[in-house]
Amino acid sequence: MTMLASAVSNQYVFSFNDGDGHNKKLLGGKGANLCEMTQIGINVPPGFVISTDACLAYLETDDDLLPVTLMDEVKSQIDLLEQATGKGFGDSANPLLVSVRSGSALSMPGMMDTILNLGLNETTLPGLIKQTGNERFAYDAYRRFIQLFGKVALGIADEVFDEPFEELKRQAGVNADIGLTAEHLKEISNVFLTVVHQATGRPFPQDVYEQLEIAIKAVFKSWMGKRAIDYRREFNITRDMANGTAVNIVTMVFGNMGMDSATGVGFTRNPATGENIMYGEYLVNAQGEDVVAGIRTPKPVLELEQEMTDMYRQLVELRNRLESHYKEIQDFEYTIEKGVLYCLQTRNGKMNAAAKVRTSVEMVKEKLLNKEQALLRVDPEELEQLLHPGLDPSSQAIAVAQGLPASPGAASGVVVFDADRAELLGKAGEKVILVREETKPEDIHGFFAAEGILTSRGGKTSHAAVVARGMGKPCVAGAEGIKVNTHKRQAVVGGTVLFEGDVITIDGGNGSVYLGEIETVPPEFSDDLHTLLKWADEIAVLSVMANADTVEATKKAAEYGAKGIGLCRTERMFNAQDRLPIVVDMILANTTEERQQALDRLRPIQRADFKSLFEVMSPHAVTIRLLDPPIHEFLPTEKQLERELAHLEQLKNTVEGVGDLMGTLWLLKGQENHAIDVAKPFGEGGRELVEAAIAKKELMLMKVRELFEVNPMLGHRGVRLGITYPEIYAMQIRAVLEAAAECKKEGIKTHPEIMVPQVCTVQELLKVKDIVDQVRVEVEKEYNVELEFEFGSMIEVVRSCMRAESLAEVAEFFSFGTNDLTQASFSFSREDAENKFLPMYTEKEILQDNPFEVLDIKGVGKLMQISVEWGRKTNPGLRVGICGEQGGHPESIHFYHHIGLNYVSCSAPRVPIAKLAAAQAKLMEDSYHLN
Amino acid sequence: MTMLASAVSNQYVFSFNDGDGHNKKLLGGKGANLCEMTQIGINVPPGFVISTDACLAYLETDDDLLPVTLMDEVKSQIDLLEQATGKGFGDSANPLLVSVRSGSALSMPGMMDTILNLGLNETTLPGLIKQTGNERFAYDAYRRFIQLFGKVALGIADEVFDEPFEELKRQAGVNADIGLTAEHLKEISNVFLTVVHQATGRPFPQDVYEQLEIAIKAVFKSWMGKRAIDYRREFNITRDMANGTAVNIVTMVFGNMGMDSATGVGFTRNPATGENIMYGEYLVNAQGEDVVAGIRTPKPVLELEQEMTDMYRQLVELRNRLESHYKEIQDFEYTIEKGVLYCLQTRNGKMNAAAKVRTSVEMVKEKLLNKEQALLRVDPEELEQLLHPGLDPSSQAIAVAQGLPASPGAASGVVVFDADRAELLGKAGEKVILVREETKPEDIHGFFAAEGILTSRGGKTSHAAVVARGMGKPCVAGAEGIKVNTHKRQAVVGGTVLFEGDVITIDGGNGSVYLGEIETVPPEFSDDLHTLLKWADEIAVLSVMANADTVEATKKAAEYGAKGIGLCRTERMFNAQDRLPIVVDMILANTTEERQQALDRLRPIQRADFKSLFEVMSPHAVTIRLLDPPIHEFLPTEKQLERELAHLEQLKNTVEGVGDLMGTLWLLKGQENHAIDVAKPFGEGGRELVEAAIAKKELMLMKVRELFEVNPMLGHRGVRLGITYPEIYAMQIRAVLEAAAECKKEGIKTHPEIMVPQVCTVQELLKVKDIVDQVRVEVEKEYNVELEFEFGSMIEVVRSCMRAESLAEVAEFFSFGTNDLTQASFSFSREDAENKFLPMYTEKEILQDNPFEVLDIKGVGKLMQISVEWGRKTNPGLRVGICGEQGGHPESIHFYHHIGLNYVSCSAPRVPIAKLAAAQAKLMEDSYHLN
Repeated sequence: MTMLASAVSNQYVFSFNDGDGHNKKLLGGKGANLCEMTQIGINVPPGFVISTDACLAYLETDDDLLPVTLMDEVKSQIDLLEQATGKGFGDSANPLLVSVRSGSALSMPGMMDTILNLGLNETTLPGLIKQTGNERFAYDAYRRFIQLFGKVALGIADEVFDEPFEELKRQAGVNADIGLTAEHLKEISNVFLTVVHQATGRPFPQDVYEQLEIAIKAVFKSWMGKRAIDYRREFNITRDMANGTAVNIVTMVFGNMGMDSATGVGFTRNPATGENIMYGEYLVNAQGEDVVAGIRTPKPVLELEQEMTDMYRQLVELRNRLESHYKEIQDFEYTIEKGVLYCLQTRNGKMNAAAKVRTSVEMVKEKLLNKEQALLRVDPEELEQLLHPGLDPSSQAIAVAQGLPASPGAASGVVVFDADRAELLGKAGEKVILVREETKPEDIHGFFAAEGILTSRGGKTSHAAVVARGMGKPCVAGAEGIKVNTHKRQAVVGGTVLFEGDVITIDGGNGSVYLGEIETVPPEFSDDLHTLLKWADEIAVLSVMANADTVEATKKAAEYGAKGIGLCRTERMFNAQDRLPIVVDMILANTTEERQQALDRLRPIQRADFKSLFEVMSPHAVTIRLLDPPIHEFLPTEKQLERELAHLEQLKNTVEGVGDLMGTLWLLKGQENHAIDVAKPFGEGGRELVEAAIAKKELMLMKVRELFEVNPMLGHRGVRLGITYPEIYAMQIRAVLEAAAECKKEGIKTHPEIMVPQVCTVQELLKVKDIVDQVRVEVEKEYNVELEFEFGSMIEVVRSCMRAESLAEVAEFFSFGTNDLTQASFSFSREDAENKFLPMYTEKEILQDNPFEVLDIKGVGKLMQISVEWGRKTNPGLRVGICGEQGGHPESIHFYHHIGLNYVSCSAPRVPIAKLAAAQAKLMEDSYHLN
Repeated sequence: MTMLASAVSNQYVFSFNDGDGHNKKLLGGKGANLCEMTQIGINVPPGFVISTDACLAYLETDDDLLPVTLMDEVKSQIDLLEQATGKGFGDSANPLLVSVRSGSALSMPGMMDTILNLGLNETTLPGLIKQTGNERFAYDAYRRFIQLFGKVALGIADEVFDEPFEELKRQAGVNADIGLTAEHLKEISNVFLTVVHQATGRPFPQDVYEQLEIAIKAVFKSWMGKRAIDYRREFNITRDMANGTAVNIVTMVFGNMGMDSATGVGFTRNPATGENIMYGEYLVNAQGEDVVAGIRTPKPVLELEQEMTDMYRQLVELRNRLESHYKEIQDFEYTIEKGVLYCLQTRNGKMNAAAKVRTSVEMVKEKLLNKEQALLRVDPEELEQLLHPGLDPSSQAIAVAQGLPASPGAASGVVVFDADRAELLGKAGEKVILVREETKPEDIHGFFAAEGILTSRGGKTSHAAVVARGMGKPCVAGAEGIKVNTHKRQAVVGGTVLFEGDVITIDGGNGSVYLGEIETVPPEFSDDLHTLLKWADEIAVLSVMANADTVEATKKAAEYGAKGIGLCRTERMFNAQDRLPIVVDMILANTTEERQQALDRLRPIQRADFKSLFEVMSPHAVTIRLLDPPIHEFLPTEKQLERELAHLEQLKNTVEGVGDLMGTLWLLKGQENHAIDVAKPFGEGGRELVEAAIAKKELMLMKVRELFEVNPMLGHRGVRLGITYPEIYAMQIRAVLEAAAECKKEGIKTHPEIMVPQVCTVQELLKVKDIVDQVRVEVEKEYNVELEFEFGSMIEVVRSCMRAESLAEVAEFFSFGTNDLTQASFSFSREDAENKFLPMYTEKEILQDNPFEVLDIKGVGKLMQISVEWGRKTNPGLRVGICGEQGGHPESIHFYHHIGLNYVSCSAPRVPIAKLAAAQAKLMEDSYHLN
């Protein structure tokens, strides 16, 4: 392909005056920018680019020959350089020297090779001395060239040059190169020539075109060097993105030709803060590498104004010109040679997220960019940095364990091994980190109380991870280096034993765990970010909602700018300490009546829950998903119950004093706070109480065994429960509608949406709709209001996608549950896959990404697209959204926009990210391609 | 709709001379046939039909009014009857009497009402007496009419008539009606008239048109009577199939008018055997109901030849005429009135499967039918009766427990509670029934040894059910009434305790369990069935293969006519007693080398397995599925290991004598046969052996815990294992290809197909393909042969459907695994769903059928259709089949044909059923509709 392309164009070499500044694939980033700058009149040393096509053509052959026409083209270009500079390549009187620099389509800093001062040899050296009148400079240039050429182009090891050089410095009694005289440098040049001859068996090439040809090949070859290959693998640079390196041949200019010369690097704005101020460093009478080498300390660029006033003015002009042309912060290099300013390179500046946001907003105000361009400048994922506290970057602490970065943010606190104690200490004002092997729904109160969560088992979609993300709390999951022993109330990390009360710090952004407290820096939700997101809202088609189950989380969602709640998992409410016992009663109920009694106790609680969510989110929608998980999730595990029963039996047999018994009983339940208070008044009757507890636990055990499922993910859950126990759904529906009715009475605007999980056939939806219709009539009558709400279906079962036409006749909205849909589409159990084969699958590139983090567009996405299309056939006004984990993933959001979704719903801290991505999806829709 | 239709046609009533004999929906089955017979010249008493539209129009109103024009139409028709018969309706001299009979589109025997002798009243009765000269006959007709009319049309309870009638008989001193004189009957007629007057408050209607109108309404109303509604629900008769009843008004003829009169019922052939012989019974001087009433014993129709030679000749003529017209065995009623033969009714005869098959083949030979018609006559599901032994129908045994009919066929044998003992006894020639709570893969040798399998847990797709069906052995699953206690080696059924060695009988066709031995009748795979299936093969597009994993099953498949093996589950071979220990070693291996050692031991065994399958199935294809189930399935459960370890520990501590120890050890493993032989020679060293056993079990326990998965169905299995342990797949592939190479060397034609399970992305398929390609080269070189085989993919993961285009570029065939695909599409775990909510789902009609038995066309089928379409886009020659449970289901087979599958694969005993269904699918393709 590339050979064909070049065969057609027939041109491998492009002068800076002619090259297409937008064709970075052909000319490399550096070359394209040099062309661009030359053509807009910036003072760039004359030069030309050899294209990446030439590189690929060369690398494709086995015989080490450049494409046949290449060196002819190069010679023509050198002729032009000679004309432009009045110098001659290889000319003994006024020699033309060039640098040979690599440059691929993507910046790969330091990964490929550069040769300076090419064109020096025994003939041209005297000419250089004569022209510059500076013998030391010339010999320094010569020995640098031999050394660099020997190393880069001829493949000679560094030490071969370094050893004699160090020896010379020792003999001369100097520490730094600067202490060497012209004589010293002449001597070492000669030594280097001998060294090269010995190492290669040939004398150092004296023919300048031979030098040039060898250098060009060396740069080409560096593209396939180990360093470059490793780099590309590390940063996922594919051939699509960059293929081959270009070679830039540039006339040498020298910043070390006296006090009217200098060299420097600059940013057009401060890349750390985004402040609109000239930024960078320079050195007078120095070469580019000296700025980096660290021997002389470079000066802040502002000092240049004093030192070289006119040069500074020119530099400011250059900076303005670059920004106004590129519409982007530039990172550029320049050299002043005898009072003339040359720009040697420019590229887009890398910045942190805060600076990106600030410059985006300011550049719009400066009319450098329009809003659309500003929105496209910021990578949504980068915003993550701004939305969570991070560890103080100046800290030198070393992580003692490494887990998965399960929920971003950093937090310090005392280690606590169970949720009850976390709550106790949390309420007492202590900062705690909840440390568990893994968490379960009944730990939920511990999450509320903790600053962060650390688990030694489970993946990025484990319970701990999902809940923590939902709450916006830091979480490190699956830190396998930590052995948690809850019974002993300690954990072992390497050689260290962590006791309850020890302080640790976790960083959920990278999965690190540290001993002791490390300072954190708070998140910055700046005015500029607010402005940017406002613009995003104006442009985006997709609206962004949040997943939230509690008032706290809903408040957080509102702060992050969510336009409603797209997923409220009602079962999360069931797990609260005051409700779980009622839920357990409901589960253990033997008759519908008994179950109804428990439900009657739950209803006012749920109603209050919903009402407070409606209030916080008013006037936006709150989408309530009816009970979803299999009900055994509300009971302890079989093992746990067996253990508890064994303990209780032992207790019953060995009981001595009643108070002691009661205390132990409460301790056993992990509720020390009750242990003393409750134990006393009971006096006698303790044994009976234990026996009652045993009876209850035995009942629970029986139920747990009865409810056992081989594959709970595919089990008796969601609407299947709602069909089996319609009274449960009826209770929840009534609680929602009563809460809505109360709001309406109180003048609070609200828009509830009732959502049915796990639907696979329209019959299920119709059965629930019957309940909704009936309850609506009752509540409207009771409260004397007219209710407005919507009724919709989760689309998370594959069959529901196939039946979208039919479901859309009943549902007013669809919400894709992409977590479950992905599990079912791949037949991957998330919990199992992420611990077992999934890492291997992405490593072996069987899958590009973990489909539970990044939507699998080709498979799951296709199902979604079909569903949207079919659903809107029968219900053109159908609203469609997504509330799975992948709802907040920027790349996936482009796809959601493409297939015409109306909204995404994600965890609160990802709302800003999703908003920006949604705006970008709209802006980039014309160039979106599905492959 | 119906009102509209009748408004357009404006005609509710049709003479037998005019009605459309094909329009059973409008005229009912009986009416249409009466019209048809009349019009082809069969002697039917004159009459007419009131259409079902009239019925529906009547039932739609609330005011009990017939459609306005109806009675006018009826009167016109009565006029025509009067002309035809020369009698007058209500005429005192020569009265016309009619019967009023219901008849809907589908036969609903006895479910709706009939009134005879309508038209009798005080005026016409003397006329009837005069015309017949038979007073007793006339009064009998009159009292029958009053009674029937009273009951059916006026809704008077039976007892009201029965009590005085019995009283009369007592007074007269007679037992049977026949003993009553004309005087008695006259008396009872008068009593009945009084009874009606008392019950209704009105005199018995004397106006014959009033009688007729009341009777018509009564028949119409009977359509919505409880009996009829229940019947339609029971037999799933929808409105599509039959809506409303027609009313047939037929001139009465009498078989009880003397010795030249008779009445009878007949079949045109013997419905029990299909033999082409006149069949049926008759009574001279009797009415139709007398034949059924059982007071007089009817005579075989062949005797009529002697008794009424000419009538018999006419009857034979009638029979021939009916068959040659209807091209179907007829079940007909006739009456001979004074030497004239009338046909009163005909309908298609019901037959058992054997008779259906025989008559189909014979009618083709007789050129009554062509092959296509013959194939369409037989319901494929009926063949099931012919393919398994059944219980002797004459047995009066009562079932003691009821389970699910999991695999058809009946079997008797001694109860055995574990697979080892089943094998032991089986080899000793004993017939055994394996009785387990549930079965596991390691019980497989017990299946081979047993006549049948009975489990107390699990559904129709439990391990026991699936394996038994695969082997064609009877199985009753989930017989919850039986409590199995394997430890005690007994089971409790109701009050009875079953000990090992007791004999039971199971019927897998209906799920019944009996104590003791009950005779079974062998299956009949008759020549006629062979002929029919040969015709089916000629016509069908779908070819039919079988699922089989062993030589025995493969032989059975060949016997049943399978054209190859569509699914050979290699893991079934892993479970054999001689292999499982090697498989366990493979699983416990810590390094690839250790694993390779185990695999090297397995390979020759697998090769021999495959070779013998190839030999049996030669020259047809054998499709080998590479290892599919999660590997923990080859290990005992955690609980079992914990228990075994506890036992072993105890044993170690309490050991007395070494021999005892060893014996116990083997007993513990359930291998009594080893217990004595093996224990002795070991002598000392017993303790070490126990310790070694403990170490091994501990290792296994560790592994089992490591392998634990929350949702094994969606776990580390199928190709995911093949990617993780490529050496396992490499071994299997090599074994397949080596077996093929050996066959080729020996001149045995074979066509292996290697099939990859659980594929979700083409990358997986490519990785396995790489192994296949490499092994092929090696084996071809080693054996110096050229191999021919195919490489394909299971399509059982939803994502593979979405990626069909891409997979089809690598796969030569697709095989739908509809078991897993259904699980994933519904998010139903089969094992859980069938025990929990699925029965409720079908009961509440949320789902029409259990989708694991009948393909869910609207959901799973849609996915399949998409896959076939997309797959053939990139690979037009792609072969596609199905090997799931639903592969052998007739209704689903129409769908497979419709979407262009090439083959189905099912359990061996379903092969004939599938073949017939495949032929029917082809024959009926034009009328196939997806809704």
